[in-house]
Amino acid sequence: MLTVHSPAHHLHHGVELKDGTVKPSFESPDRADTVLARVRASGLGPVAEAIAQPREALTDVHAPRYVDFLETAWAQWTATGRQHDALPLVWPVRGLPVTDEPQHIDGKLGFYAMDAGAPIGAGTWAAVRASADVALTALDALLDAPAGTGTGARGSFALCRPPGHHAARAYAGGYCYLNNAAIAAQRAVRRGARRVAVLDVDFHHGNGTQDIFYERADVLFASLHGDPARCYPYFAGQAGETGAGAGLGFNANYPLPWGTDWAAYVPVLDEALRRIRAHGTELLVVSLGVDTFEGDPISHFRLRSEDFLRLGERIAAAGLPTLFVMEGGYMVDEIGLNAVNTLLGFEGRG
Amino acid sequence: MLTVHSPAHHLHHGVELKDGTVKPSFESPDRADTVLARVRASGLGPVAEAIAQPREALTDVHAPRYVDFLETAWAQWTATGRQHDALPLVWPVRGLPVTDEPQHIDGKLGFYAMDAGAPIGAGTWAAVRASADVALTALDALLDAPAGTGTGARGSFALCRPPGHHAARAYAGGYCYLNNAAIAAQRAVRRGARRVAVLDVDFHHGNGTQDIFYERADVLFASLHGDPARCYPYFAGQAGETGAGAGLGFNANYPLPWGTDWAAYVPVLDEALRRIRAHGTELLVVSLGVDTFEGDPISHFRLRSEDFLRLGERIAAAGLPTLFVMEGGYMVDEIGLNAVNTLLGFEGRG
Ligand SMILES: [Zn+2]
Ligand SMILES: [Zn+2]
Repeated sequence: MLTVHSPAHHLHHGVELKDGTVKPSFESPDRADTVLARVRASGLGPVAEAIAQPREALTDVHAPRYVDFLETAWAQWTATGRQHDALPLVWPVRGLPVTDEPQHIDGKLGFYAMDAGAPIGAGTWAAVRASADVALTALDALLDAPAGTGTGARGSFALCRPPGHHAARAYAGGYCYLNNAAIAAQRAVRRGARRVAVLDVDFHHGNGTQDIFYERADVLFASLHGDPARCYPYFAGQAGETGAGAGLGFNANYPLPWGTDWAAYVPVLDEALRRIRAHGTELLVVSLGVDTFEGDPISHFRLRSEDFLRLGERIAAAGLPTLFVMEGGYMVDEIGLNAVNTLLGFEGRG
Repeated sequence: MLTVHSPAHHLHHGVELKDGTVKPSFESPDRADTVLARVRASGLGPVAEAIAQPREALTDVHAPRYVDFLETAWAQWTATGRQHDALPLVWPVRGLPVTDEPQHIDGKLGFYAMDAGAPIGAGTWAAVRASADVALTALDALLDAPAGTGTGARGSFALCRPPGHHAARAYAGGYCYLNNAAIAAQRAVRRGARRVAVLDVDFHHGNGTQDIFYERADVLFASLHGDPARCYPYFAGQAGETGAGAGLGFNANYPLPWGTDWAAYVPVLDEALRRIRAHGTELLVVSLGVDTFEGDPISHFRLRSEDFLRLGERIAAAGLPTLFVMEGGYMVDEIGLNAVNTLLGFEGRG
């Protein structure tokens, strides 16, 4: 299958609070480089660079003033004399009365964030915009490709970085700024797909994607993830969150315990795929995080590298045009192997 | 007047994210030591150590499970193998669906915080509990003292550290854990005061005290502070926040612009004091932050050291039994001078 990427991701290299000090983030440029190298080494298929996309594709799922904030935050931050990565320090938690954007950048940073995990540096905007371009370019390539001749599902791979699934309609978080998977799903709707599904197999709940589509029936969101009672993001991802309004019944969360291995994972995956087929899905977007790997440094599932081949096979069995969008995965040595294994499995090359 | 303190504050010495790295907090043990030295050098009056108080005084204003969290957080944190200060990394911001306490300590830290500014270390619980003891001991001493013979107001000084006014019913923030001023005001109510007022003159809005008394008519909260559109805590402190339910009309915020000096400050102070007298206040608690000082490193008002003498005089003119509770002030060299100037001014020794 086609892989789309952008070298602009190198412009973003943030920091995070780790072991009591500020260190380079687990979400590092090496991640995408490692995956791209593996794509090439494996002969997965052609590799193309992203095509720049109109800004309207971003504001079609994100609040316009949130996008404005992302675009201007670094300039506002450096105007106060600071040159290190901008991180929020205070948030509008429940019970605080002010619900509008503060004037000062230090207040805006918290207003548009759910955590302290989405640093903004000089190159962040360029990188996150390019990451959305990657998703949109890969989606268009998938939709524009001639229909397959056999029964096999067709796929394309958006090698996005930064990832996107924690980014909600109006806030960043968890290394995510723009929700690449949601932006691509929305483009598919705009291009005529009546029923779309997002399957999120990242270890962490895709709270941002859920937020964006929570009141919509046309885009089903299904996520397998570590139980939020014990796992980031803690404040979303429970099974009782089933959608609202017109979207009631179109949000499916499958929280799983620490230590979940492939044997425990696969029946839940199959149930999620059954829901996706029952939805009448015409296009599937997979938020592909490989931090379910047993060696991941910040997660708690126990999938082995060969299990990712099986993961791809099972997704392929749904028989749908499928856009894979790169999300998390932080064990740099194996992230390429595990991501590409999923794609090879999807293509029946496992 | 009597000063009450506790050496236990030394057990708390947190960190914060400052200039892109983790550094010792502006809210340092030096602060209280400097104030106590100035109290002694100025001959303000007797100095006493705090008397241990029942836990019920804390849960009379804070959610019991929040107090449980504060008491056990360090043990839960170190049980995960970490020994550095515990800081939250993710918060239940607007729109996130989960409203109950997560099981994992990393989730609880965000559930019970509004910001990344209230680190929890090995000695934090002992220090914050002792700080509440300081406020309660000073309050009892004030209420138990024989009534004055003249027209002069009587005062006592709770040299609390950590401070308290950002701590709400169920969350920490801004260097604050237990709300010492609110705990003392509530004790005054329990001891029979029908009308109590809290006057907050710290540079920052006392969002925690507001939260605790927002629906009560018996405790008036009045605060002069930097406009939250441009100042921490950003998400509380606007003039339109006037109370709710039975408390409607009993919350008075006076946001002021950056650069406010004494000439601009004093008419607003007098208006707040007029409100406090009109409330029929029987006991006044002053949240005494001196980060309104022109040299404060994190604030934006321009009070000079001699202005704090005038501040004390004007508070004394209200003619009320007055408990001063130490809050912020981060210019360590002058914090003692400015705090004690307020108290000397109150006593007519300016
Ligand atoms: Zn993840
Ligand atoms: Zn302050």
